[in-house]
Amino acid sequence: MFAEIITIGDEILIGQIVDTNSAWMAKQLNLIGIKVKQITSVSDDEAHIMEALQLAEERAEIILITGGLGPTKDDITKLTMAKHFGMGFRRDEETLKNVTNIFARLNRPMIDVNIRQADVPDGCVVIQNKNGTAPCMWFDHHGKIFVSMPGVPHEMMYLMDEEILPRLKASFELPSIVHKTILTAGLGESFLAQQIAAIEESLPAHIKLAYLPRLGQVRLRLSASGANEEVLKAEVQTYAQQIIAELKSYVMVEDDVPLEKAILDLMTARKLTLSTAESCTGGYIAHLITQHPGCSAVYAGGAVSYSYELKESMLGVKPDTLNTFGAVSEQTVLEMAAGAVKHFNTDYAVAVSGIAGPDGGTAEKPVGTVWIAVASKIDVQAKVFKFGNKRIQNIERSASAALTMILSRLKQDHN
Amino acid sequence: MFAEIITIGDEILIGQIVDTNSAWMAKQLNLIGIKVKQITSVSDDEAHIMEALQLAEERAEIILITGGLGPTKDDITKLTMAKHFGMGFRRDEETLKNVTNIFARLNRPMIDVNIRQADVPDGCVVIQNKNGTAPCMWFDHHGKIFVSMPGVPHEMMYLMDEEILPRLKASFELPSIVHKTILTAGLGESFLAQQIAAIEESLPAHIKLAYLPRLGQVRLRLSASGANEEVLKAEVQTYAQQIIAELKSYVMVEDDVPLEKAILDLMTARKLTLSTAESCTGGYIAHLITQHPGCSAVYAGGAVSYSYELKESMLGVKPDTLNTFGAVSEQTVLEMAAGAVKHFNTDYAVAVSGIAGPDGGTAEKPVGTVWIAVASKIDVQAKVFKFGNKRIQNIERSASAALTMILSRLKQDHN
Repeated sequence: MFAEIITIGDEILIGQIVDTNSAWMAKQLNLIGIKVKQITSVSDDEAHIMEALQLAEERAEIILITGGLGPTKDDITKLTMAKHFGMGFRRDEETLKNVTNIFARLNRPMIDVNIRQADVPDGCVVIQNKNGTAPCMWFDHHGKIFVSMPGVPHEMMYLMDEEILPRLKASFELPSIVHKTILTAGLGESFLAQQIAAIEESLPAHIKLAYLPRLGQVRLRLSASGANEEVLKAEVQTYAQQIIAELKSYVMVEDDVPLEKAILDLMTARKLTLSTAESCTGGYIAHLITQHPGCSAVYAGGAVSYSYELKESMLGVKPDTLNTFGAVSEQTVLEMAAGAVKHFNTDYAVAVSGIAGPDGGTAEKPVGTVWIAVASKIDVQAKVFKFGNKRIQNIERSASAALTMILSRLKQDHN
Repeated sequence: MFAEIITIGDEILIGQIVDTNSAWMAKQLNLIGIKVKQITSVSDDEAHIMEALQLAEERAEIILITGGLGPTKDDITKLTMAKHFGMGFRRDEETLKNVTNIFARLNRPMIDVNIRQADVPDGCVVIQNKNGTAPCMWFDHHGKIFVSMPGVPHEMMYLMDEEILPRLKASFELPSIVHKTILTAGLGESFLAQQIAAIEESLPAHIKLAYLPRLGQVRLRLSASGANEEVLKAEVQTYAQQIIAELKSYVMVEDDVPLEKAILDLMTARKLTLSTAESCTGGYIAHLITQHPGCSAVYAGGAVSYSYELKESMLGVKPDTLNTFGAVSEQTVLEMAAGAVKHFNTDYAVAVSGIAGPDGGTAEKPVGTVWIAVASKIDVQAKVFKFGNKRIQNIERSASAALTMILSRLKQDHN
């Protein structure tokens, strides 16, 4: 069973935005046993869109289309799909209600182009888009499925999760697919592969192991494909346990959740609290944590102490420490973490101070030097990392290393 | 002049990685006047790659291909290109030298597959890849240019910048392309379109206007294509000024930079300082600001005050205020912002307190209710927003609204 993804819109072709939708969609499709044959980005041009639809239909059974559904005249996806299928238009009353409600909620007057968002090709099934005014349209054309969705990521994701994926599962006989993900940290991809080589070689043909490295972590994903879901689950579980036993403390989470979610789950269960003291990560760790609903049971808050002054006033770092050792030093980061535990009255705290770059490095402390400390009410420990010279990556890798340190520490203290 | 980009490799089609290469390449091509007609991602499959090459050649003059050049047996781009062009292979001595040097530097033994990286289709021009072992191959086939590059981003970028783009400029007579982006906030896409309809209709055929909406902001992009760059710049500037005059205070930035960068630029120029006091945005505003190099000249830091206690201890919010009005209230957010200016000793501060959801809403304050305040040393003003019920989007929209409020305020005070 093959799908193709077509993204419509000039913004991708002029390089204004990176197409993150396609990777997300491809991942979800693979998870339910639908392979993606091709991803195609085309411009808002009728002839070109029609050619792309035609070619995709020749290669795949499912064609998912995003973009080009806005109210302005450069958005021509809807018109082009109707032309491609030889359909006329009808006004969809449910869509009109949805659009009217959205405008009422925003307290904005509706104009003619907004009303026309409710006009859809008369042969499609409309799937209501609760998060926006552009309707999602499902076409069943000679047994091939075409779905046109808005390109706004959260609208597309919600529609995929709630509507499209369940309908695809119901429309086709798909194999059962069972995945199991193990999150590791502290060992590179090739070393991991070496350590579990015997297990990998013993895998039967219907079970695959993928290495997904990112930011100093490697996710190991076992994927089994077959007829009986329960059998597959048991098989995957057996191999997963072998891998976990082999990799021991390199295993951070025996599940497909991000590090900060694993931390929140463990701390919630044990009624522990956490705070943060961030310099070079600039609030990114706090942001990762507070993305998750229910984090307030664990997370009290923290300091983004960019300046020397705020490291002193918010965290109680001694001026002497800063002047003698500098902001990026073991001494400073230890005081930051201990200060956070004390001032924010939490069980644990993590502190990060480093040189994210691109400027500010010295021979002794080059760009990419990052100190991270984890403190409890009893003690505090620090570690230094040497990352590269890219600012954004340094921020992300620092956050990832900090979360790894917290989780390792929590496992030591509370397992 | 059209180009197409073909990315080869399963990792994109299974959603393992996001294809950031294509957007980068498309941007560089557009800047030198080469439009990208289509971006296509295909798997490591001979028939599929050959079909993609064939179709791309029918639509475009330049075909840039990335990926599938590794030493392992799933990498078949080189073999497939030779087959497509009906070429044999020759050993390229320069490439062999490069590969040998790289292995010597890494102190690793070379094996047969590494030596075979120096075998190239005999009709191509080899461009040396200084950053890796896979050679870059340039084919001139009946006046159409095909370039096969490695998919590793930094290898591809270096080759594009140093070799491919200069050679393309030398190979074709390219038009000049001029873009101008205006960032607006506070008015939806369709209302913007209505307000500038007369200007849009007056645009000549060679100037296009695009609407790029995101998180309550809309970017307006004028793109002009023609022979004389100076003439185009003047034309685009004229239309941009008409749009700016028409939209007045809805225009946030007359340039293609994110809001927080515009804030940093304005505040750096005027030697002003900023701090943040975040509750529901949980450090996300701080993160947006601190992504940018040089932010420390403006940004002192801030509080992520998730708990009542930290709102009191870090920002000086009165317990009475919290108990009487609650954390999500005008009174609390005013005290948070004023407290940040005072405690963090900055010229300005922004504070956000809201209910990001999915839980925690009440009839009076439903999920999505967000109060935002901006304070200077002189006064403080707050505004309430009603967003939706999605946590991540509420965080993003709150940050976007907060940044819009800061920038509007700065423009009032310092224009």
